[in-house]
Amino acid sequence: MTDTPTDVLVLRKDTHGVPTTEYADALRARLPENDVTLARTPGEERELIEDAEFVAGMVLDEALVDHATEMKVFACAYAGVGHLPLDTLREKGVTVTNASGVHGPNMGEHVLGNILTFARRFHRGFRQQQRREWRHYQTHELQGSTVTIVGLGPIGQAAAERLDAFGVETIGVRYTPEKGGPTDEVIGFGGDAFDDALARSDYVVLACPLTDETEGLIGRDELMTLPPHAVLVNVARGKVVDTDALVSALRSNTIRGAALDVTDPEPLPEDHPLWNLGNVQITPHNAGHTPKYYERLADIVAENVRRVDETGEYDGLRNQIEP
Amino acid sequence: MTDTPTDVLVLRKDTHGVPTTEYADALRARLPENDVTLARTPGEERELIEDAEFVAGMVLDEALVDHATEMKVFACAYAGVGHLPLDTLREKGVTVTNASGVHGPNMGEHVLGNILTFARRFHRGFRQQQRREWRHYQTHELQGSTVTIVGLGPIGQAAAERLDAFGVETIGVRYTPEKGGPTDEVIGFGGDAFDDALARSDYVVLACPLTDETEGLIGRDELMTLPPHAVLVNVARGKVVDTDALVSALRSNTIRGAALDVTDPEPLPEDHPLWNLGNVQITPHNAGHTPKYYERLADIVAENVRRVDETGEYDGLRNQIEP
Repeated sequence: MTDTPTDVLVLRKDTHGVPTTEYADALRARLPENDVTLARTPGEERELIEDAEFVAGMVLDEALVDHATEMKVFACAYAGVGHLPLDTLREKGVTVTNASGVHGPNMGEHVLGNILTFARRFHRGFRQQQRREWRHYQTHELQGSTVTIVGLGPIGQAAAERLDAFGVETIGVRYTPEKGGPTDEVIGFGGDAFDDALARSDYVVLACPLTDETEGLIGRDELMTLPPHAVLVNVARGKVVDTDALVSALRSNTIRGAALDVTDPEPLPEDHPLWNLGNVQITPHNAGHTPKYYERLADIVAENVRRVDETGEYDGLRNQIEP
Repeated sequence: MTDTPTDVLVLRKDTHGVPTTEYADALRARLPENDVTLARTPGEERELIEDAEFVAGMVLDEALVDHATEMKVFACAYAGVGHLPLDTLREKGVTVTNASGVHGPNMGEHVLGNILTFARRFHRGFRQQQRREWRHYQTHELQGSTVTIVGLGPIGQAAAERLDAFGVETIGVRYTPEKGGPTDEVIGFGGDAFDDALARSDYVVLACPLTDETEGLIGRDELMTLPPHAVLVNVARGKVVDTDALVSALRSNTIRGAALDVTDPEPLPEDHPLWNLGNVQITPHNAGHTPKYYERLADIVAENVRRVDETGEYDGLRNQIEP
């Protein structure tokens, strides 16, 4: 146990349009003994980071790191940390944690909403409503379907758990299938097993990180392997899908539809054909939004602050990323 | 066991735009020993019903019943049987069965789709997509919400089972709360307990039959009792809700929104204000549609035909309604 409670510095960038003051307040509510300060301007950031050991924020650029001579922990507010100067932070011996898990509930809800929109054909219902047209139309049924979930991190797991009561077969795809998972089957990326899963899928949910292996994972061949009634749901990153191949498949009904929260390029240009396809549901990279974002993030960060206070160590933290 | 397998007569009216030939085929596949005949015209119905003991169909009018001198069972293809000449059938000693349970999966999926549409605000996403507008918006989170389900028949149960993994509190409302149910709490209709449930609800799902007790169940007072962020989902019957009070509540944001698969009147007239409210999702009495409709119906009816063949009795059938 350290003598004085660790101070926490919160940087100014907010996310999803919710002010960072709410993040600082959520931390203060969980850490009544600790001093939580919000740097509201670039000048305050440069000044306050000089003495800060525990820093929390969305982004952190090299220039600011130069001022951070005392920094021991940077608690990143995103699940992905590819935008951080990781080499510099490693050289300085800074422990980096991420927000993995914060998005499980909302992304799980988003994915199930996408799937049910296509099962019940709500996009057709919306268009009929706009025309004031009361006319029955036929629907699909999710029960009895096969859903493949690519990526079994917190988001893929949240989707799988919520699908369980719908009476579907689930196939999980992960780098290390030997770890198992909450799906009925677990397979690895690529190869015949992956193609076989696609051929059996009514819905494919992309919930994996963007890596060399997942970039372009769903291209022309994979879209051809999917049955014509299959629906693709992408809450991962736009580049996991070959967009030209997807547009072509959607135009020719090679697959039934796509729900895209992420696109390539992003933002989607106004003249892009994806906007106008009747079998596409586009949400503007919104699946990550939740009113509970700062609360769940503060749960992780406050736990780590308390751990530092108790142990005096800046290692072995929750959500710590590999150096 | 009777000497010869019971013949089955299927009447001509179809439903949801799927030909009745598919219903007859589904019965034949399950009853290879029995003769299943489809009456395709009014003349064939009048002629064939004269010798028929086991009749299956959507509707049955008095005039046709006059011809049905041998009829022992009428297997109605709907869950509700209020449109049948029940008094006449009772006088003739005809056993009536219904289709209760056939709609559980599809209605459960529809209800969850409605709830998630409002949690993720997909109707806003849909409108932005039509404007080719890539702009973040804030959403709600279902997890942690309270969902009240009015009616714990097969549809209410299907909704409750599918909600379970979403981390919500559920309150079931039924005539006989002492029977319990799949919700966290079970209460009766009306009174302080019902009002208290409304006051705590983020979502209210109406999945009850229309009766004297449920007609106008949700009126001006109940809409005022609901919190302003509450969403009403109606897959029951339009008249369970006071439409004028609902329009008024939706216009003034007394509640956040409504997903309506049924309306009063129905079909909804083209000049009705519900069509154009941005916080309403209308589907044209479509929640009951499923591609599995005839298959699940044929499961029930074929089971009863086999039971009649085995016992020689026209009583004690699955889904038999009280005389």
